[in-house]
Amino acid sequence: VGAVITLTTDFGLNDAYVAALKGVILSINPEVTLVDICHNIRPQNIRQAAFLLSTVCDYFPYQTVHLVVVDPGVGTSRRPLILKTPRAFFVAPDNGVLSYIIYAGTSAVPTDGEHVKLGGDLKAYVINRSEYWLSSVSNTFHGRDIFAPVTARLSLGMPPSGLGINVDTVTAFRIPFPSREIDHITGEVLHVDNFGNLITNIRANDLPPEWQNVNIVIGNHVIEGMVKTYAKGQDLIALFGSSGYLEISRKNGNAAAFLNSDIGEKIIVQRR
Amino acid sequence: VGAVITLTTDFGLNDAYVAALKGVILSINPEVTLVDICHNIRPQNIRQAAFLLSTVCDYFPYQTVHLVVVDPGVGTSRRPLILKTPRAFFVAPDNGVLSYIIYAGTSAVPTDGEHVKLGGDLKAYVINRSEYWLSSVSNTFHGRDIFAPVTARLSLGMPPSGLGINVDTVTAFRIPFPSREIDHITGEVLHVDNFGNLITNIRANDLPPEWQNVNIVIGNHVIEGMVKTYAKGQDLIALFGSSGYLEISRKNGNAAAFLNSDIGEKIIVQRR
Amino acid sequence: VGAVITLTTDFGLNDAYVAALKGVILSINPEVTLVDICHNIRPQNIRQAAFLLSTVCDYFPYQTVHLVVVDPGVGTSRRPLILKTPRAFFVAPDNGVLSYIIYAGTSAVPTDGEHVKLGGDLKAYVINRSEYWLSSVSNTFHGRDIFAPVTARLSLGMPPSGLGINVDTVTAFRIPFPSREIDHITGEVLHVDNFGNLITNIRANDLPPEWQNVNIVIGNHVIEGMVKTYAKGQDLIALFGSSGYLEISRKNGNAAAFLNSDIGEKIIVQRR
Repeated sequence: VGAVITLTTDFGLNDAYVAALKGVILSINPEVTLVDICHNIRPQNIRQAAFLLSTVCDYFPYQTVHLVVVDPGVGTSRRPLILKTPRAFFVAPDNGVLSYIIYAGTSAVPTDGEHVKLGGDLKAYVINRSEYWLSSVSNTFHGRDIFAPVTARLSLGMPPSGLGINVDTVTAFRIPFPSREIDHITGEVLHVDNFGNLITNIRANDLPPEWQNVNIVIGNHVIEGMVKTYAKGQDLIALFGSSGYLEISRKNGNAAAFLNSDIGEKIIVQRR
Repeated sequence: VGAVITLTTDFGLNDAYVAALKGVILSINPEVTLVDICHNIRPQNIRQAAFLLSTVCDYFPYQTVHLVVVDPGVGTSRRPLILKTPRAFFVAPDNGVLSYIIYAGTSAVPTDGEHVKLGGDLKAYVINRSEYWLSSVSNTFHGRDIFAPVTARLSLGMPPSGLGINVDTVTAFRIPFPSREIDHITGEVLHVDNFGNLITNIRANDLPPEWQNVNIVIGNHVIEGMVKTYAKGQDLIALFGSSGYLEISRKNGNAAAFLNSDIGEKIIVQRR
Repeated sequence: VGAVITLTTDFGLNDAYVAALKGVILSINPEVTLVDICHNIRPQNIRQAAFLLSTVCDYFPYQTVHLVVVDPGVGTSRRPLILKTPRAFFVAPDNGVLSYIIYAGTSAVPTDGEHVKLGGDLKAYVINRSEYWLSSVSNTFHGRDIFAPVTARLSLGMPPSGLGINVDTVTAFRIPFPSREIDHITGEVLHVDNFGNLITNIRANDLPPEWQNVNIVIGNHVIEGMVKTYAKGQDLIALFGSSGYLEISRKNGNAAAFLNSDIGEKIIVQRR
């Protein structure tokens, strides 16, 4: 079946771990198309993986199966999960790596700081049907032994209810939304890309329409106003990037290196 | 349609940008085969991308569509381009990244240092039919929003004339050909590969047949004569590599690190 | 034909060499599925490639063709090889990079420290039918010009006897098996993975069943006992990893960096 499976891991590209996932999947569904999203997630960084996945998954065909293996709790009691949305399937450990996907739905209700109750068009299943896993399951590589075969079977059209048991509460961390005061918004850096662009959690519609002119403050730098493209402006610039988030960039340079900034750095948008 | 699309970008492998291109393409042509050429082009280095692409594109099947997104001018007035050659299609910004492809044709006439007039079997089209792009186009990621959907439609067999308007003048920088004097040739390093081999712009037929014996000078090192394989010689060696260019290599080592050399370094071949 | 080809090289991801292999293969078999195992093998490190390949190849479908290009002797007299096992085909230079595969068979008999005589269900062929190679063969890139087209033809179902001549002796280095004394086993680190886990050559069944309690010694560190998962224990831990080998790991950290250890480091398992 010519479905698409994507893979997001913190396995890096110096090992054969990613290939092991692919070998298992192709042994079950030889016709599937495999696409790497990213394997250079910082080791065990669930939040970075969660964010990156959320920026790209909607560009894939309907019914794509997204496999995410950033799994510091492998071999412990953390649950293996299938999440079904109207658009796609996600197979991942139940550790918060699907938080953005879950909160993008309309019906997730936080029950505490780390869990949500699903409803509406999101359905979750705890993977428990071991007859669909590899016959031998290691303690340290559930990606290969459990997640990959389950992903392959979803790509063949097998329903998630045949692979796991429906549950209504899953793990999701609170998305770090920006906070708005009377004359400024405080956000933070969520991701640093290959060009050194700092991608923040502030979106265009977080700014009131009457804020025509703003300054952006990061560290001890002030950027006056925003631009439309990377080629505009001088030196440090601020713009809304391709995923809709405010980015700090440096013209023909690397903003993260220049500012010595990284994920978590505070950013303030001030009405002028 | 089982066509092949290749991808060359400066996006690196730490983000989801490459995956976004692939998701868009597969949403339009689910049957296509996607091949990465290189995503570690140095940020915004049009010349490096142009060279690397030229060394590999002829090894792909006829009618392959080569997508190249090294695009420092994204969102400005630089034009999005389709180039059709007898062998393949290229989709790229009109910024010189196709220079080697264009000069490999027989009929490109430079009009100034940065543009050529096409003729013969090369045809160019400025992409302008927005009904074939994503419905929402960002200012900062035309690769995803314009180039990828156009690439996918070419791979489905749609003619370029349906996606853009024919033009006869496009951007191409002058290829840095080596210069020959009576007893020596001066060239430069175009690329440094993973093994530290310095790949220059000097080809075998740049050397007159009567130059049986040559010395190669780089920095304050002189290499006496050339060898046939990496395993021959001692220490620094010079040979014609797999793309036909003169390379400086170091036996069981890294020539670039040893010489502290990089792209742009001058190299001289002296008749002995 | 919808076969699978895997690729393992030391080409890195900054060049177009891997893409050249894929272009050649797809020109011959457009229907094949290509999977990267690893391209970040340390330059010319045959032993690392041999080990990594052995941990993953059995997870691929039957009749997969595994192409391995770690080839410091390219252009010299080292032979190009096809190895046929009951499960798969391997195409590689005859330089020992298939040693683990060969010794996994039941019938390899060492003839000296560097060669084995095959028998039973392993068959080897020296590639010699140049009509199936690219028409022009460089001295420095047999991967592209010889190995890739041969790999593609195997994936189309062509028998190896049509591509080379059967031989019974091939190159295989001695696998570095651990050595057992009365109260301890001495092994070594074979691979360091992306998480900094040190993967050794000691397998579970190298430990006598009566050794219920062990200490693991590496450098001047002693690890008391073993655990089942990465999430258990404190600081440095030892466990049997997903390929069955004893690993040294650091909880939420990087053991290789912490210990300043690398491939070749000695490790001792002491009965307690």
